[in-house]
Amino acid sequence: MTNLKNRRWVLADYPDGMPDESHFRLEDGLDVPEPGDGEILVQAKYLSVDPYMRGRISPAANYAAGVAPGELMQGGGVGEVVVSNSPDFAPGDIVESRDFGWQEFTILGPKSGINKVDPDLAPIQSSLSYLGMPGMTAWAGLFRVGEIKPGETVVISAASGAVGQVAGQLAKAHGCKTVAVASTQAKLEWCSEIGYDVGVNYREADDLSATIAHACPDGVDFYFDNTAGPIHDAVMENLALGARIGICGTISLAGQLDQPDIGPRYHRKILVARAQMQGFLVHDFAADFDEARKHIVGLIDSGAFKFKEDVSDGLDSMAGAFLKLLHSENFGKQLVKVG
Amino acid sequence: MTNLKNRRWVLADYPDGMPDESHFRLEDGLDVPEPGDGEILVQAKYLSVDPYMRGRISPAANYAAGVAPGELMQGGGVGEVVVSNSPDFAPGDIVESRDFGWQEFTILGPKSGINKVDPDLAPIQSSLSYLGMPGMTAWAGLFRVGEIKPGETVVISAASGAVGQVAGQLAKAHGCKTVAVASTQAKLEWCSEIGYDVGVNYREADDLSATIAHACPDGVDFYFDNTAGPIHDAVMENLALGARIGICGTISLAGQLDQPDIGPRYHRKILVARAQMQGFLVHDFAADFDEARKHIVGLIDSGAFKFKEDVSDGLDSMAGAFLKLLHSENFGKQLVKVG
Repeated sequence: MTNLKNRRWVLADYPDGMPDESHFRLEDGLDVPEPGDGEILVQAKYLSVDPYMRGRISPAANYAAGVAPGELMQGGGVGEVVVSNSPDFAPGDIVESRDFGWQEFTILGPKSGINKVDPDLAPIQSSLSYLGMPGMTAWAGLFRVGEIKPGETVVISAASGAVGQVAGQLAKAHGCKTVAVASTQAKLEWCSEIGYDVGVNYREADDLSATIAHACPDGVDFYFDNTAGPIHDAVMENLALGARIGICGTISLAGQLDQPDIGPRYHRKILVARAQMQGFLVHDFAADFDEARKHIVGLIDSGAFKFKEDVSDGLDSMAGAFLKLLHSENFGKQLVKVG
Repeated sequence: MTNLKNRRWVLADYPDGMPDESHFRLEDGLDVPEPGDGEILVQAKYLSVDPYMRGRISPAANYAAGVAPGELMQGGGVGEVVVSNSPDFAPGDIVESRDFGWQEFTILGPKSGINKVDPDLAPIQSSLSYLGMPGMTAWAGLFRVGEIKPGETVVISAASGAVGQVAGQLAKAHGCKTVAVASTQAKLEWCSEIGYDVGVNYREADDLSATIAHACPDGVDFYFDNTAGPIHDAVMENLALGARIGICGTISLAGQLDQPDIGPRYHRKILVARAQMQGFLVHDFAADFDEARKHIVGLIDSGAFKFKEDVSDGLDSMAGAFLKLLHSENFGKQLVKVG
């Protein structure tokens, strides 16, 4: 046992619909054990807040095991090694892992996918955004799922989010026409600043399908779908021949994840456009991460890359930051600064 | 002008929902012009009845130009050359074309995609089924869209139809487990006779999703979707990891083609299974038709291939045969014998 005390968020109960503060519980004064052989004890600096976490707190089948009531909330983070029983890490090292959990201290082992982070290369929290999972997701969606080509029209929902910001800039640099879909004018102004060609405010459009049609006169070649729901529908009405749709996230369903999503279906559109819709998960493209990271670093080195974070302060704010994200009230990559 | 008289079916009016006899009109006593330079005059022997014709009699956007009220119904056929002004064809030749139309005599030109048919090789009407468009569709769906692999579970709807019969036998010969979905026990018995491993009667299942789950304990790897609608839904509940869904036809929507199809959507399933749904059109795979035809001929030569036709007699029966198809009342490839 160390003499450190831990604080952590657990799931209080499965939400029935949209989660609220009552579904999470902060636990305090917990003992921090010594790391075992080959393990390290890490103190969090930043924790990541991501849409996928909604899927983890549902009893429905998911691509990863979920969190049961009473269990630690899952999530990635970056922090400093406090104790190391591994030859690969030393105290003071900065490491990132998707197995961090919503807590101040964590013990990580060989199976935790620990990545050493060089603090001189980029802000350490970029390992949770453009140099980490969201960046890899953006790259895989565009180049492996969408197989985007220069000159194509690429529509990206949640365009100012962690994935959307990277995807928009990568697609633009690849010679695509990029269309941002977001919830506020401020977000769309940011999208414009980072290079998106056109912005669509889905909350203010009278007829979202017509607005997408106006923004995409040649139709949509690739739709990077981070939302599902009505934005998806509006894009499906505007597919170009041979369109691809990458199903990356479904945040619009956050309030109804365990009920059937009833709405218009697009079999005829898919048939007529010979379109291809594909669900994808970033971890399936792990073999491409080195290439993806080099590609993104190249964009950064060109000097044109911009990225906005939304950082809330302290572990206490974690549940609130997550709820903000589910309501599209964050602006940029949502992080919680802990250390 | 020849001294022949033609009879033909025209679209009387766009159907609003499911078509009936009133939407078609038989015209009689029409003059048959001489074929122009490079053209041939052909007398129909068999006309093809296919689900895609429903899409052609709708004002909605489709992958091909539709039939306006008063115009000749579109469709493929096989017949005998009566007059030839083309060096490629002689009177007496048997030819197949998708540009035939619902009529006794047609004039075909270089743009009609005319294929010479060898009557000694196979019954000439096979050029409208397993050696023609439906056969090519089955092959392209399995091997280009589905990329099926031995050992996989392949579910095929409209399994005893023109496409389904060929797809089921090709998939079985490729080493897949094949699951037939059809509307009657008689159809499923036929599916069993031609080698399908399991049959599912979608009209009699209390819980179609559970029935599919029972038939596919390892999940569905490829769904050859000829129907859309509730069969699609039941399969989507049972996707294996990495499943593919080939959207080939939407006959379940025949009665509601111009209204939105409202129902459960499967973004989460697509994401969790990392599934891929693709609309496809046989003509996009024209470069593969020689390979496809050889593959099917190889299956025929092996002696194992079986194929059932549903032949109605005379041009008068054409509209009725089409309506039978839309109501799943045909049993096997629907043809009309004209000559």
